[in-house]
Amino acid sequence: MAKRSNVDHLNCSIARSLEIVGEWWTLLIVRDAFLGVRRFDDFQRDLGISRNILSDRLATLVEHGIFERRRYQEHPERFEYRLTEKGVELYPVIVSLLRWGDKWESPDGPPLRLEHTTCGHDSEAVLTCSHCHEPLDPRQVRPRRGPGASREASVTTS
Amino acid sequence: MAKRSNVDHLNCSIARSLEIVGEWWTLLIVRDAFLGVRRFDDFQRDLGISRNILSDRLATLVEHGIFERRRYQEHPERFEYRLTEKGVELYPVIVSLLRWGDKWESPDGPPLRLEHTTCGHDSEAVLTCSHCHEPLDPRQVRPRRGPGASREASVTTS
Repeated sequence: MAKRSNVDHLNCSIARSLEIVGEWWTLLIVRDAFLGVRRFDDFQRDLGISRNILSDRLATLVEHGIFERRRYQEHPERFEYRLTEKGVELYPVIVSLLRWGDKWESPDGPPLRLEHTTCGHDSEAVLTCSHCHEPLDPRQVRPRRGPGASREASVTTS
Repeated sequence: MAKRSNVDHLNCSIARSLEIVGEWWTLLIVRDAFLGVRRFDDFQRDLGISRNILSDRLATLVEHGIFERRRYQEHPERFEYRLTEKGVELYPVIVSLLRWGDKWESPDGPPLRLEHTTCGHDSEAVLTCSHCHEPLDPRQVRPRRGPGASREASVTTS
């Protein structure tokens, strides 16, 4: 899928994020990286996608600083793909998709459980407010113009 | 973009979620719904997309129970699109994409701030553990087989 440059007029962080990670397969490649996959052949085998699509998606991820390409062998030269800090910070996106799919699209129960090693319990990820630490309910959130808003931008609220 | 039925072999809630909301435009339509947009013409104007693509995406969202189509006028008949509970629960996905784009792709600062009305402060959404309430760091999360795992599924961990 080609980049959709017609979303450039949407001065929106969600649109910008999707410009980078919204291509088909990209978030599944990032998911694999969180599960410990690092090498081209392992991504390819795990996802069952064509090598040229995988190659294209990995190049995009490296270009945007989400993966770092590191040489792990010299003769012959071989590289692996590691998440950068920018990549690691996609974790909430991945986990939010996971929780939603677990709840709404997994009639046999969640394929994965996430054990939080610091507390030792299976964790359900919860999105909370950085200030009061309560769960964030969209009905209790009011979007307002931020410093990067376009001059003409307005915010519709329900 | 056609559905990618070749991901059916990936017994993964992330893949299942992306099968539904991973098509281009879909999450931007859901974003608009969170900002209060409900009517076809308003989605169309806000996103600047073609009417047939919008129509296709809205049909998918209704089919999968993310939007409910409600008649708001009888003569002539007109409908609006409202998020269902399943749709509202996509909020963490949307907000996680927002926060990531704010941090990594918004050189002029965040276009939107999110005021948490219950505490009155601008909120940065934080993904936390449902058990100990600490922020979830992927390096402190161990994925394990859940009840819905395929018999042959294995979990690679780094």
